[in-house]
This record gives sequence, C-alpha cells and structure tokens, in this order.
Amino acid sequence: MQNRRDFLKTAGALAAAAAVLPGCRPRININTGHTGGKMKMSFRPYELELAHTFTVSSYSRSTTPGVQLSIEYDGVTGYGEASMPPYLGQSVESVTAFLQKVNLEQFSSPFLMEDILAYVDALSEGDSAAKAAIDIALHDLVGKLIGQPWYRIWGYDPAKAPDTTFTIGIDTPEVVREKTQECAGKFNILKVKVGLESDEEMIKAIRSVTDLPLAVDANQGWKDRQKALDEIFWLHEQGVVMVEQPMSVDALDDIAWITERSPVPIFADESVQRLRDVERLRGAFSGINIKLMKCTGLREGHRMLEFARSLGMKVMVGCMTETSCAVSAAAQLSPAVDFADLDGNLLITNDLFKGVEVVHGRLVLPDRPGIGLLPV
Amino acid sequence: MQNRRDFLKTAGALAAAAAVLPGCRPRININTGHTGGKMKMSFRPYELELAHTFTVSSYSRSTTPGVQLSIEYDGVTGYGEASMPPYLGQSVESVTAFLQKVNLEQFSSPFLMEDILAYVDALSEGDSAAKAAIDIALHDLVGKLIGQPWYRIWGYDPAKAPDTTFTIGIDTPEVVREKTQECAGKFNILKVKVGLESDEEMIKAIRSVTDLPLAVDANQGWKDRQKALDEIFWLHEQGVVMVEQPMSVDALDDIAWITERSPVPIFADESVQRLRDVERLRGAFSGINIKLMKCTGLREGHRMLEFARSLGMKVMVGCMTETSCAVSAAAQLSPAVDFADLDGNLLITNDLFKGVEVVHGRLVLPDRPGIGLLPV
Repeated sequence: MQNRRDFLKTAGALAAAAAVLPGCRPRININTGHTGGKMKMSFRPYELELAHTFTVSSYSRSTTPGVQLSIEYDGVTGYGEASMPPYLGQSVESVTAFLQKVNLEQFSSPFLMEDILAYVDALSEGDSAAKAAIDIALHDLVGKLIGQPWYRIWGYDPAKAPDTTFTIGIDTPEVVREKTQECAGKFNILKVKVGLESDEEMIKAIRSVTDLPLAVDANQGWKDRQKALDEIFWLHEQGVVMVEQPMSVDALDDIAWITERSPVPIFADESVQRLRDVERLRGAFSGINIKLMKCTGLREGHRMLEFARSLGMKVMVGCMTETSCAVSAAAQLSPAVDFADLDGNLLITNDLFKGVEVVHGRLVLPDRPGIGLLPV
Repeated sequence: MQNRRDFLKTAGALAAAAAVLPGCRPRININTGHTGGKMKMSFRPYELELAHTFTVSSYSRSTTPGVQLSIEYDGVTGYGEASMPPYLGQSVESVTAFLQKVNLEQFSSPFLMEDILAYVDALSEGDSAAKAAIDIALHDLVGKLIGQPWYRIWGYDPAKAPDTTFTIGIDTPEVVREKTQECAGKFNILKVKVGLESDEEMIKAIRSVTDLPLAVDANQGWKDRQKALDEIFWLHEQGVVMVEQPMSVDALDDIAWITERSPVPIFADESVQRLRDVERLRGAFSGINIKLMKCTGLREGHRMLEFARSLGMKVMVGCMTETSCAVSAAAQLSPAVDFADLDGNLLITNDLFKGVEVVHGRLVLPDRPGIGLLPV
C-alpha cells in the first residue's frame, strides 16, 4: 500500500491549500493567462481498498487499481485520478505507458484547455481513464488559478445538487437487510444491481426494511426484452424509479422497445462511452450515464451533458470506485443532472481527499475552487 | 443622439475600470459566490449611426436602434447591448417593455447564470435582442468577478481568433472599386451581399482591385436552386470561399440539394435563430451562423457552437450593426469558429467602447476580463 503522505508531499499539497484562502490569488498575469512557467505533471499508482467486496453480474473484487496524478503550475497544484475497474480494460501499466507519452510543457498556459485536451486525446485511441486523470487535474488547476469551483464557472446552482444513490451490494437476505438498515438513515435513494437470479430476493429484503426509492442497474443482465419489461413493471411497483442498461449493448433495438414501454426512464451505461456515442442512443434510451473514466474527463463530460440536453435526453452522472478526487470532479456536473450515482468514494477505506460530501443523502458541493479538494 | 458620457456615468464605468487592474480582485466571497448584494440593472436607448448607408437585397438604412444595458453588482459593472435591425421585428419599445418585466434582484448571485437566463428566457417567446443584452451584461459581470475573459474560461486559445470578413456595400462599380481599394490593405477576407441583379458587376469590380478571398451572403435572394448552384460555381471560380443562406428559409430541400453539390460550404443565417433550430439544419447546410441578437446571447450561442460541432457541422459567428460591446461578446467565441463576420462595430461612428480589434485583418481579443471592454 502506498503512503498517502508521500503522495501529497510530492504533489504540492501546501500550494493547493494556499490557493483556497479567501482573497489569496495566484500570481497570474491577467494579460496573458500565463506566468511564463511550465506545467509539471507527476503521477503514481494508488490502489483503492474497498470497504466491502463488490459483486456485479460478472465478477467480484476487493481492490481497484488507480493512479493519482497532479499538475503543478506557478506554485498551484491540480489533482487528478485514473480509476481502472477491470472491465474497462485499462491498468496501472497501460495508464503509466500513456502518461509517459504526455508532454504538457509544450503548452504556455493551462488555460489552453481545448488545445491541451485535444492533444492528449489524439495520443491514442483508448486510454480514457488516463486521459480523465489529466483532464481532472487540469480542471482543478485552472479552477484554482481563477479562484472558482467548476459548478460556478458553468453557472450551476450548487443548491440543485441532487441526492446520490448508494449501492446495496448483492448478498444474503440477512446481510442485505442489515446493510439497508444502516444506509436507510443516510441516503434518500438506494441502488441495486439486478439482472441476476437474486433480483426478487434482494428487492424484497430491502423492502422489508425501507420504502426509499430505488434505482436499479441491470448491467446488460436481461436477455429477453419481454421478460425485462415485465421485471421493470414489477420493479416499478416496488418503488424503482429508474433502470440502467437493461440489455446488452448489441441489443439496441430491444432496448428501444423497452424504453418505449417502460414506466420509468431507462439510462445507457455500457452503451455510452463518449460524446460520439450519444446521438445514436436517442430514442433507444431515455438518457445517458456520464462517467469521467469512460468519457476522458470533465470537458467531454460537460459537453455530453449539454449535448444530451440539447437532444432532449435525460442525464445522470456516475463514477467508478474512486477517491474523492474523481468523485468531486464528477460532482461538479451534478446540479444539472436527473440522477447522481456518486458513492464511489464512500466505498473505499483509503481516501486521499475531502471533497464532495453526502449530507442527509444529498450531495453537498465544496465551496472551494477547482474541484474542491482538501488533502486529508 | 444620446450623450455617451451620461450613459457611462450611470453605468458605473469607474467600477468596471477598477475591476481590470491586475491583482485587484472584487470582494467576492469564495464560499458562496456572492456578496450579499443585489444585481441592479439599468438601460437606455442608444441609436447607432452608420458610417455608410447600408443596403441588402430587401432594404437600406442609415441608423440602427439599440439599447445599452448594464448590470451592477458589488461595485462591478457588466455591459450589455441590444441591437435591433428592422428585420428582427424588435424595437426600442419592445426591448424596453421586456426589460421592465425583468427582476434580477430575486437572485442571490450573478453566478447562477443557468437559473437567471432560464428565468429571463421564460418571460416571453421572442425578445431575443433584449434577452441578449441581459446575457451579455451578465457574462461581462461574471467574467469581471472572476477576473478572466470568456474565451479563456471556455478554454479557447485567443491566438486562434480568425480573420473577420468586412462587408463591401452594394454600390456603383467606381465606388465599389474605391471601397475595396481602401479595405484590401486592412482585411484578409471581404464579404459581398449577393442575390441581386448586381452580383456579377460587384464581384468583377472587387476582382479588378484585389485577389482576397470573398465570402458571400445571398440573404435568401436566389429563387431557383439550379441557377443558385450555377452562380455558386461561378463565384467559387472568382475566389468565393463560403456562401450564406442561398435561398429562402422555406426552401430547405433546395438548400440541401445545393449544399450537397456546392464546392464551398453553405451556412445558415436566416434559417437559424436558436439552439432548437440547429439539428434540423444538419444535412441541409454545412454550418450555422451564430448571432447573439438572434440566439439570446453568449450562453445559448456557446451551446449552439458546441452542439453544432457535436453534430459535425461548421460554425461561423456573425453580428448586427452593434457597438464594440456586443461585437466583443461575440468575439469571445471566435477562436472556435470557421469564419467570423464581426465588422458591425466598424460600421458605426458613435461606438461607446474599445474591445475586440482588427489588426492586419485578424480579430485580436482583448486581454481583459468579461467581454473585455474599456469605455471610450
């Protein structure tokens, strides 16, 4: 396990803390947006330890590989993170190999985000998590340089940040009842993985404890559209308010058939990675789940949000198992979404930051610039 | 004619000047984004006087009605403007009536741009110029509060701001040659209104003086698609690099037919007003012309730009006859467009501001926060 003090020291935590003092402004030249300095990027692996073993329809795990990244410029440090759940096909090795190709020193200013992130994206076809780490750190840095959080720069009202869902892992009915009891007082909406044999048992165990609304994620688990729709109607009667990815990414016509008939909105998860995927999903899904590790970060994530809205689609924002770094980045978008599934930082035991918090079930965005982190 | 000193005095010019001093930061509370104060909006008519009588295929004029607006918050002033060319169907009376309905004091902070501008937009169906005046002033204010110009907040490289076109008005060949001679040294691309009997004469008069690339705006002037296409091919041979609105807004199928065959990109002008218009134009046009007075301002204009790009369309940014206020606002988008037609402030004799400038034909964005204005 990595030593968190070492990482924070190398990442320049003191500079970041200084940047958040009211009235303290970095020595940025308003005339040019840069200081003559260069951006310095550093990164290191940081394995995330899960509070509980995590099970979805296809696998279980107790840790998630991650990479922590920072970009320093003129004494100010922006933090970023790559989280690589196995199903994304990225690893510490692939992220490291990608990041070693990146040269940010060629850019005169971190404010040139359009150019910088276009350059980063063009370095390879995939590597979405590595690209997200750079994007998040760059947003944190630029937000700190201008002294504002991103939700405010985007014009969103932080008071509109929604409740976050919290996932109740699949387990025996006794354990599920116990976990639900524990969570029901802290969250206003719970999430359940479905598409397994255990669906009915899980829902009934939760319902024996609480009437809270539920979100469900089928993770492509249903194989027959009529059976899926029947189960969605039953879930709706059980208080389920939304469904993610009912069937396989290859079954878009079947999903469209379900969405047309469903009493609750159907969101794309595995079917959507990036901006280029969004348009063909209209009609087939009610909305999209935006995850920074898949879409390369906040700049494309914000574009996807705006694009989906312009197409009349709903939007949710999700996360991987991540520290408060990537989760607080995603949370900047949350005042503008229909659902937020931002519990990834609550599921680990070795968080590195204090950022977005959950108070009475609702996301509370930090009143700090950039993505609002305080190293802990 | 209005007295410019009076306007600037009431609008709090001194406060704005103070906000641009490097290192001088307004007393904003980083924790909440507001100061406890209220936004105060004021406005007054300001008629724009044209250097030359302006002629397009349907009318001529020597003045344009306008309204200058300002929003003050915590000692900082943001400037906005409504410009109402007769064909938009808005007037000093309609703009004034709309603005009198607006109550910005209900909002705790100018940073709540999403909510504020949604409220303003919902007050009426039309009134796009009045809405743009508020949007522009709010952007100027927020940019000043955070100490950055909008092109930088959006992550654009100001070095990518393009050349602006400059319009050569329709006139006798002698006058056209004279005007072209005068402009050819100052601009790198000229614009000509076509769709009139005088097209060939105009182009030949210009070509007798300069080889500069030309943009043409047909203002719906062509009535037959084959004739339009034939003329576009001829114009292409004459060095024309883009065409605006070849036929009527009602002739979308004909325009699509032209676009499919045209050797140069075809841009929508009269066919596009707002974000909701963009998607159905894909395929029919190569791109869209974004004008703040039609689309209600920078927030929707920036969304249209991003949306059109996401749809794979080209983008240009245009303007009305305006002071440097609205033109400098539109210019914030210019590093991200294919063509800029931002000469509206160059055509008036009673400008109120110094803002975006044209140097060797290229737009040079001000290194000042907000939309970068200095009162003159």
